[in-house]
Amino acid sequence: MLVQKYIDMLSAKSVIRQLSEFATARGQEIGYENVFDYSLGNPSVPAPQEFTDAMIRMLSEQNPMELHGYSPSLGITSVREAVAASLEKRFGIPYRREHIFMASGAAGALAHAFRLVTEPGDEILTFAPYFPEYGPYVNLSGAVLGVVPPDTDTFQINFKAFEEMLTEKVKAVLVNTPNNPSGIVYSTETIQKLTDILRAKSKQYGHEIYLISDEPYREILFADADAPCVSRFYENSIMCYSFSKSLSLPGERIGYVAVNPACPDAETMVNMCGQISRGIGHNCPPSIIQLAVAQVLEQTADLGVYETNMNLIYEELLKLGFTCVKPGGTFYIFPRALEEDSVLFCQKALKYDLILVPGDTFGAPGYFRMAYCIDTEKVERSLAVLRRFVETEYPDR
Amino acid sequence: MLVQKYIDMLSAKSVIRQLSEFATARGQEIGYENVFDYSLGNPSVPAPQEFTDAMIRMLSEQNPMELHGYSPSLGITSVREAVAASLEKRFGIPYRREHIFMASGAAGALAHAFRLVTEPGDEILTFAPYFPEYGPYVNLSGAVLGVVPPDTDTFQINFKAFEEMLTEKVKAVLVNTPNNPSGIVYSTETIQKLTDILRAKSKQYGHEIYLISDEPYREILFADADAPCVSRFYENSIMCYSFSKSLSLPGERIGYVAVNPACPDAETMVNMCGQISRGIGHNCPPSIIQLAVAQVLEQTADLGVYETNMNLIYEELLKLGFTCVKPGGTFYIFPRALEEDSVLFCQKALKYDLILVPGDTFGAPGYFRMAYCIDTEKVERSLAVLRRFVETEYPDR
Repeated sequence: MLVQKYIDMLSAKSVIRQLSEFATARGQEIGYENVFDYSLGNPSVPAPQEFTDAMIRMLSEQNPMELHGYSPSLGITSVREAVAASLEKRFGIPYRREHIFMASGAAGALAHAFRLVTEPGDEILTFAPYFPEYGPYVNLSGAVLGVVPPDTDTFQINFKAFEEMLTEKVKAVLVNTPNNPSGIVYSTETIQKLTDILRAKSKQYGHEIYLISDEPYREILFADADAPCVSRFYENSIMCYSFSKSLSLPGERIGYVAVNPACPDAETMVNMCGQISRGIGHNCPPSIIQLAVAQVLEQTADLGVYETNMNLIYEELLKLGFTCVKPGGTFYIFPRALEEDSVLFCQKALKYDLILVPGDTFGAPGYFRMAYCIDTEKVERSLAVLRRFVETEYPDR
Repeated sequence: MLVQKYIDMLSAKSVIRQLSEFATARGQEIGYENVFDYSLGNPSVPAPQEFTDAMIRMLSEQNPMELHGYSPSLGITSVREAVAASLEKRFGIPYRREHIFMASGAAGALAHAFRLVTEPGDEILTFAPYFPEYGPYVNLSGAVLGVVPPDTDTFQINFKAFEEMLTEKVKAVLVNTPNNPSGIVYSTETIQKLTDILRAKSKQYGHEIYLISDEPYREILFADADAPCVSRFYENSIMCYSFSKSLSLPGERIGYVAVNPACPDAETMVNMCGQISRGIGHNCPPSIIQLAVAQVLEQTADLGVYETNMNLIYEELLKLGFTCVKPGGTFYIFPRALEEDSVLFCQKALKYDLILVPGDTFGAPGYFRMAYCIDTEKVERSLAVLRRFVETEYPDR
């Protein structure tokens, strides 16, 4: 009498994980330096030294009972205050402690956001290409994920399809900008148009449509990117943030929910998060990590390497005849495959020890994702391999 | 259109929290050393130095990308292995890595256990007196918590009431031994009888009834306690553990689920936990805390102070004429109040700056809980206050 839905999920293997396992196994055969593994979105630069120093300082100097004591269920007060102040300084939105809920990474933040605004059966819309974990995250919360097909010319929003899908059942719209897997950043024009529609439809349907903004890549922006803060455009917005990428701390599970102070129910929503936690066993991110992160809010890991890598890859892709929207941030790029079946395309690449992920996984077949959070030296060596792959497998291009 | 059930929960204030807030406010008035705060179950001894040393060593010496990298969704492999080996050594049950799922504290562990074995509407039974958070933990998971009334003579199990309530709808039974709030430990006889009944009823109903054992106080045992390992008695058992109390790390959110190797579906169940995590935004305890705890599995904080405190309080309670079952572990004691209305009894105690929690909160009206995780020196000073309270308010006893 185990719960069948979880058993069923066990047979659905993650494509990304399978490719990553292949890369590891292949690395053991031929040396990992010879495998060009673009499968996993794992930060490739270390956490800032200031984070390590803050941790050691607290461990050395502070009373362990205070340091390792229970966090209040909404997060440690001083940490919530520091996060609010930093957001206000950065985005000019008057966040206060009351608007901040500390969460265990983006997954924890999103789990709370979905439960705040949806009853079972309500719909949440997101936009392809999209992070595939949104499927189980939303569907297991009891809500239903609807995926708006992509605008493949720009990977901005396909507004025609969106307006058709934005029915009365939709209670929230989930955006991810800078975007995994496309690397693009939604423009001011896109966000403006999106929020105009949400405002009009909220009025028409007589209920709020919340905008949930998943922003783990917010600090990884490239030159000249027009990267507006989503929450500046829409009062009923819920920002979900993780320090995984900005501070290179993916394993330490630290992030937050920030509800827009302009949202009439903002404080209630943050308090509700504390109740949601009781049901899902969340109980706050670890105290010591909350306290350490609060000391390095203005820091990031050395993120510049990702832009260097992106430029190298982007230029080579163009030379080789790929169609590709230039990323504005993240450590992903999402070119069009050289044949319609991108699964086949990525399989052929494996023969060259080039690990690419088919776009099917992200709701955009015909494309593929490269996660270029690897050493620049390896990116450089991979380009000749990419060229050999293309020239051998697609000689007529 | 926020979700009403969470808004409704906001108005139901926790009695324990209210009392603790009263204690803090009163402390600001008269000095906290003059408030005898027995409300909160927070460890009062520091984490072992070995834990701090392990943390500092890793932070100083290890590659931050490895140290802070993503944990696999079931937990870091070496940590799962270490936990399994430690459990095997301790309890003689052949746990292996495959039976261990690392969870963010007992709340995280229980959230997974409930979802493994219950569909919405299924029932989970527990025994009064019980930890009041079990209510929201279970009910928000979609299952329904049934509470078996207490056997107030011993605070072992009221088997007559239990057998009446153990209907076909019950899919799991949740035990907590050593027990919060009573401090008692279920005897070998109790566990034997409980598991005999579960085995018979599983057969009769044609479905497994799982035994979920919440064991955060397992290491806090007093002289001569008969404290059998629940999982040794029943194959379909799910152990939920937290290091919060044993290592005095309540804020660091680290624990595990250990499924009995004798359970036919044990490995599947652990794999299912990884899927459940996706739905509730769990995503593992922090990597560095997993790695540090694995290095101190055989350590505890200096827990002896709790037995010292218990003996002081227990003896004084008997002298004052209280009826009280002697605790076998934890840092709680659960005497009978001196009048039927234990809420009133605890209110009267407040006048003496003595903070006691009425048993109503734990499903056992007429009793009260003292959490004696405070300095022994303060316990000693509190006894005269307790005497004054009793002699003044209940002079005819």
